[in-house]
Amino acid sequence: MLYDLAIIGGATAGLSAAIYAGRKKLTTVILTKEIGGQSLLTETIENFPGFESISGRELIKKMEAQVKKYGVEIKDGLEVESILKKEDFFEIKIKNFEDTFLVKSIIIATGKNYKRLNIPGEKEFENKGVSFCSICDAPLFQDKDVAVIGGGNSGLNSALDLLKYANKIFVLEAGPKIRGDELLQEKLKESGKVEFFVNVQPQEILGKNFVEKIVYNDLEKGEIKELEVGGVFINIGWEPATKFLKGFVNLNEWGEIIINPKTNESSVLGVFAAGDCTDTLYKQCVIAAGEGAKAALSVYNYLKKD
Amino acid sequence: MLYDLAIIGGATAGLSAAIYAGRKKLTTVILTKEIGGQSLLTETIENFPGFESISGRELIKKMEAQVKKYGVEIKDGLEVESILKKEDFFEIKIKNFEDTFLVKSIIIATGKNYKRLNIPGEKEFENKGVSFCSICDAPLFQDKDVAVIGGGNSGLNSALDLLKYANKIFVLEAGPKIRGDELLQEKLKESGKVEFFVNVQPQEILGKNFVEKIVYNDLEKGEIKELEVGGVFINIGWEPATKFLKGFVNLNEWGEIIINPKTNESSVLGVFAAGDCTDTLYKQCVIAAGEGAKAALSVYNYLKKD
Repeated sequence: MLYDLAIIGGATAGLSAAIYAGRKKLTTVILTKEIGGQSLLTETIENFPGFESISGRELIKKMEAQVKKYGVEIKDGLEVESILKKEDFFEIKIKNFEDTFLVKSIIIATGKNYKRLNIPGEKEFENKGVSFCSICDAPLFQDKDVAVIGGGNSGLNSALDLLKYANKIFVLEAGPKIRGDELLQEKLKESGKVEFFVNVQPQEILGKNFVEKIVYNDLEKGEIKELEVGGVFINIGWEPATKFLKGFVNLNEWGEIIINPKTNESSVLGVFAAGDCTDTLYKQCVIAAGEGAKAALSVYNYLKKD
Repeated sequence: MLYDLAIIGGATAGLSAAIYAGRKKLTTVILTKEIGGQSLLTETIENFPGFESISGRELIKKMEAQVKKYGVEIKDGLEVESILKKEDFFEIKIKNFEDTFLVKSIIIATGKNYKRLNIPGEKEFENKGVSFCSICDAPLFQDKDVAVIGGGNSGLNSALDLLKYANKIFVLEAGPKIRGDELLQEKLKESGKVEFFVNVQPQEILGKNFVEKIVYNDLEKGEIKELEVGGVFINIGWEPATKFLKGFVNLNEWGEIIINPKTNESSVLGVFAAGDCTDTLYKQCVIAAGEGAKAALSVYNYLKKD
């Protein structure tokens, strides 16, 4: 079968694109590791217009139901290995899977993944006190002191999740200033549980069977210091899930897909992209939803020209 | 008082911007004729991710509640007359109102308004059989034959609203092809109540006290013909609500605000724009919501530089 459209990725941007493609009656398949992806990890979304407060999981569930109404096929549990450009269609190869998908157009909406510190102890203590996901793991740190690495919104949101469980929270930011929303900062300060450190660079995570301390460089004083903690949450940002696209579409220096911001076209004719895997300035759920819709409408216009 | 931000317009783009500005703790005021604007006229929205089906009014109500949580001031029932650029702030003048608003930055999110045919009878029979809003007026046409002018999505949605009431619906499209969603076209065809005319140009609306017929030019045959109808719905699109901005920011040939599609900046430093009043390609609710969020985050970055 030759599909009109494959959407690679099944989180907000991908599902929004699928709603629009489905309503335009394009034969569409979503290829994804997991519906929702990283969105499933967000416990509380308060800035998606229309929902005062909703969990990532719940929002994704609603969007998935909406997609299914329009007859879009969902293939999850699979990972795209590569895309080959043929005469007037694309062949999509799947990891550990012989069959390929043949499609006339593609929307890439693979989102982004956690960035790592790449310091000693980070890998060794993963799931032994080192976590990238406060939503998943905060309950494991009841009454413990924990460090959150990163003073942006992901770090502050992580600290907020931990408030309910941890005894004391140290937020460590490498830059000169906490960068996250003032509103979040205030909430954290009000709790009396959170201490902020700026101009500090994590060096090493230490422990026996489980995290016991984090060693950091106090950049102002030029001193190596340590904090006794039972957990380290690493929330220093993300990187786009675009490695499989290297050499296929143009990426910027951060690995983001370079798109025409009006049409969501990539550098390859017939290939579009939307959401956090692209070079859009802001990585936000509602922006990804808008971008997914834009990409699908551009695909519709592109296929109409046939 | 000098506000950080005025958002002009209180529909999807404006409210989404307000949520983001409020969460960033910018002192923000929304200046609008009516919260919701044209969105209130849409009875059923099925393509806003997260809602399988919701009325425009209901969606706006949810967003408004969300905005209020963040302390954003809402001033409705007023119309912005002009904006004056001062040294390092803006003065916003309101029609029939002496006080002005002083603000550091502006997001324009005024949306768009109905386009008119400008043919004889259109003005004369307005509210006497001529309507621009099927949601508002469809129930008045119980068991009547009606014409819908426009074969795009607004025309087809109008026909869909009329299905429940009218006896027979004629959809008149000036171009060679019905342009609206296939899904909508199918629904209308299935009803057996709808007849499509392409390549036809409305000439005149006739009647005594109320619409009785529409005269049109059959462009293929070059013949003037008429249809006996008790109502005419004019749904040929919109124009951006940007007249008050002429000479202040750069507009394109359709009167849309030209923005940097990555940052939502207009041609005037400190003035941003979002949604249907801009030169974005697609005028859709979820896209406007994303654009509003983008504009607010750009305002935040702009003000941070102070």
